[in-house]
Amino acid sequence: MTADWKALQAVLGVDKVSWGESIRRSHARDESYHPEHLPDVVVFAESLADICQTVEFAKQNQVPIVPFGAGSGLEGHVIPVHGGISLDVTRMNRILEIRPNDFLVCVEPGVTRQALNDALRPYALFFPVDPGANATIGGMAATNASGTTAVRYGAMKDNVRSIEVVLADGRVIQTGSLAAKSSSGYHLTELFVGSEGTLGIFSKLWLRLYGIPERTVAAAAEFSTVQKAVQAVCTLLGAGLLLTRCELVSRQYMEVINKQLGTQYAETPTLFLELSGSEASVQADTELVKAILRDEGCAQFRAVQSEEDRRQLWTARHNAAYALMRSYPGLFHMSTDVCVPISQLPEAIAIAETWMERLQIRGGIIGHVGDGNFHVGVMVDTDDSEDLRRAEEFSHHVVEFALSVGGTCTGEHGVGLGKRAYQEAEHGPALAIMQNIKRMLDPLGIFNPGKLVD
Amino acid sequence: MTADWKALQAVLGVDKVSWGESIRRSHARDESYHPEHLPDVVVFAESLADICQTVEFAKQNQVPIVPFGAGSGLEGHVIPVHGGISLDVTRMNRILEIRPNDFLVCVEPGVTRQALNDALRPYALFFPVDPGANATIGGMAATNASGTTAVRYGAMKDNVRSIEVVLADGRVIQTGSLAAKSSSGYHLTELFVGSEGTLGIFSKLWLRLYGIPERTVAAAAEFSTVQKAVQAVCTLLGAGLLLTRCELVSRQYMEVINKQLGTQYAETPTLFLELSGSEASVQADTELVKAILRDEGCAQFRAVQSEEDRRQLWTARHNAAYALMRSYPGLFHMSTDVCVPISQLPEAIAIAETWMERLQIRGGIIGHVGDGNFHVGVMVDTDDSEDLRRAEEFSHHVVEFALSVGGTCTGEHGVGLGKRAYQEAEHGPALAIMQNIKRMLDPLGIFNPGKLVD
Repeated sequence: MTADWKALQAVLGVDKVSWGESIRRSHARDESYHPEHLPDVVVFAESLADICQTVEFAKQNQVPIVPFGAGSGLEGHVIPVHGGISLDVTRMNRILEIRPNDFLVCVEPGVTRQALNDALRPYALFFPVDPGANATIGGMAATNASGTTAVRYGAMKDNVRSIEVVLADGRVIQTGSLAAKSSSGYHLTELFVGSEGTLGIFSKLWLRLYGIPERTVAAAAEFSTVQKAVQAVCTLLGAGLLLTRCELVSRQYMEVINKQLGTQYAETPTLFLELSGSEASVQADTELVKAILRDEGCAQFRAVQSEEDRRQLWTARHNAAYALMRSYPGLFHMSTDVCVPISQLPEAIAIAETWMERLQIRGGIIGHVGDGNFHVGVMVDTDDSEDLRRAEEFSHHVVEFALSVGGTCTGEHGVGLGKRAYQEAEHGPALAIMQNIKRMLDPLGIFNPGKLVD
Repeated sequence: MTADWKALQAVLGVDKVSWGESIRRSHARDESYHPEHLPDVVVFAESLADICQTVEFAKQNQVPIVPFGAGSGLEGHVIPVHGGISLDVTRMNRILEIRPNDFLVCVEPGVTRQALNDALRPYALFFPVDPGANATIGGMAATNASGTTAVRYGAMKDNVRSIEVVLADGRVIQTGSLAAKSSSGYHLTELFVGSEGTLGIFSKLWLRLYGIPERTVAAAAEFSTVQKAVQAVCTLLGAGLLLTRCELVSRQYMEVINKQLGTQYAETPTLFLELSGSEASVQADTELVKAILRDEGCAQFRAVQSEEDRRQLWTARHNAAYALMRSYPGLFHMSTDVCVPISQLPEAIAIAETWMERLQIRGGIIGHVGDGNFHVGVMVDTDDSEDLRRAEEFSHHVVEFALSVGGTCTGEHGVGLGKRAYQEAEHGPALAIMQNIKRMLDPLGIFNPGKLVD
């Protein structure tokens, strides 16, 4: 598959199109274990017009386009497995409009999460979705990213108000409206959020914002077993308590963290919680949380308030994946990402623990337990086919259980390459509808071929 | 358009198919001003199999199917404008499964909102979406209904986890999963929520539940102008305060309410608010709300706690539409339903007030102000073409302004017949995508023809 890239360069400008080896290599993989594949060319789009011209070129020449942002994905979404164009949007990093009174912001797709929140801070506003990585907003929308705050604020799907999308036939549409809610037409915003570059290219996004709460309290709660910790979370949610974050870090992960970061955490399953709201309400709710957790068998509870103390307390959770990777230099990171109805979480985790031991998996369990979503971070030697096979077998058992209880193979990382094999089992006859939508919107198959429902 | 209804009756059973005049007439309209149109036949489905057989019959005979629930819609969605089958799902009113630990419930489409909440109360759980009417869950999902609690809990789109849908070709799909979040496949649940019976027939729905908060406080806050009241709401939201309900009732409506219900409310723009959460947090937040509202010019603030007092306090808001209708016996109710970015709400309401006066509109303004959504309840004499024309002109001005500021023609009532004319203006080139989706899923056009994007 090749095309006259010089012609594309002539259209877009010399500094926007590159086929240099090192630039192509830096667009050949993400942060996952999936093997790299180089694009034929990298386009650095700077505007809607650049995207439109690139799509037109791809259509004329029937070459793939794969959008590329921070490259922080975990399922190989950005890997151009069929070559073609890697469409890098990181130069489209302007915050176009902040509307504090409407709790809205309009950004280009290459704006990163942290840059956005830096720009919002003077307005006492923030964008809550926090997948950990400093991903681009375009990439986060494309994968329906979520993370630690989803228990309160939902995923990208719940926080993208409207998207400007370039379609495969060159048309540019605006999904949704700027209204907080609408019953007009079909909900296209949610169709494009999570479409992983397979239905259209995002050129502009309107996002929902929130006022920074007056007070935030962070807490760590130690339990003797994962089961007890998860049950405690169910009780908190049942009491109608609004948690801002609610994370579980397993014993194995706590050990790795202490070893790698030199910390002194108790090496036991630990819940990391956050509450936020008005000063008085947070103080009151913290006491309530503490009382409930004690009743549920929490051995040790510690709550802190100042920003510095909170950062300190969250160190373990925030650096968990990093600590794990540092423990196994040279290996690659594979992460399971199932999400199950929360009552099934203890069993899902027990099954994961059993198979970790049986298959001698290197890694640990970490979970967005308020959502029933958890990850097993697995360190894989991708050069060792037996090691890779074991990791894949492990992942398979975890996914299989999740699907058997009505869960999903991916709560937030997306399908990309790693979860394609489960689309049929998860969606059944609905998969054919998804494939029809794909064919309808991209009849030539130029948008990120080989991914998601392809 | 006719078919061998006796053949259908032979398939489904004699008590499930009726072409009697009075039954057809009771399925010929909703609660709106839209003129009635009788279906050729009414099918009372009792199971998925009944729906499938009815769809099969409709496909073979190329006759329309229009699902029918409580008939409480406000835009004529259920009116079978091209005749055919009115598919009544009210006999499918079983609550199939309550899963308290998963905060999930599975219902048939004919279950009503109140019946559902009655069944959930023993579990200290509730389903929050509250459009006012005792609508069926199927109908609420089909129109993406919301109402007074959307400011906190979102619309149906945010609270339907998964739907079993019968497609026009007879296939039955299950959208989404039971997981709290997912990045797997395209988001079909949101595509079907709000599709108004045009893409498929809902046979089963999984809904998200919430714990009943420990404490709820209701408050009424009087303002001298609508503008001041709306500004106060913006300040509350900006402070990160989580309101459970946040409603504005205009002066005209307060007058109508006092007159019809014999109440003694101050006849001035009034905000009706609700806060809920833990005992201590609600007490604290109520004080904060009071202080902020005083700063924003609230003339009178009253908060109550007991269920009886709260019901009393909300009487005005809950009975507003009813009081208005009672003021004009024999006239029909037309409701505007625009939703705008909240900063535009004062101007949107000012424009509505201006046109109400200019066109001598009978009615009043009521608003879900926390969402930027407001209704002008307009009482129309549908036999008087000049009166109807004035009402439609009025509605047009309100919608036109909303669209000019990036809002939507319908925040929660849906498109049905009344807002079809605005789909192109609101969605632009995205409308063609919606129409393609419709054609893809329903090539024969048997599902609720003449509605939404048709």
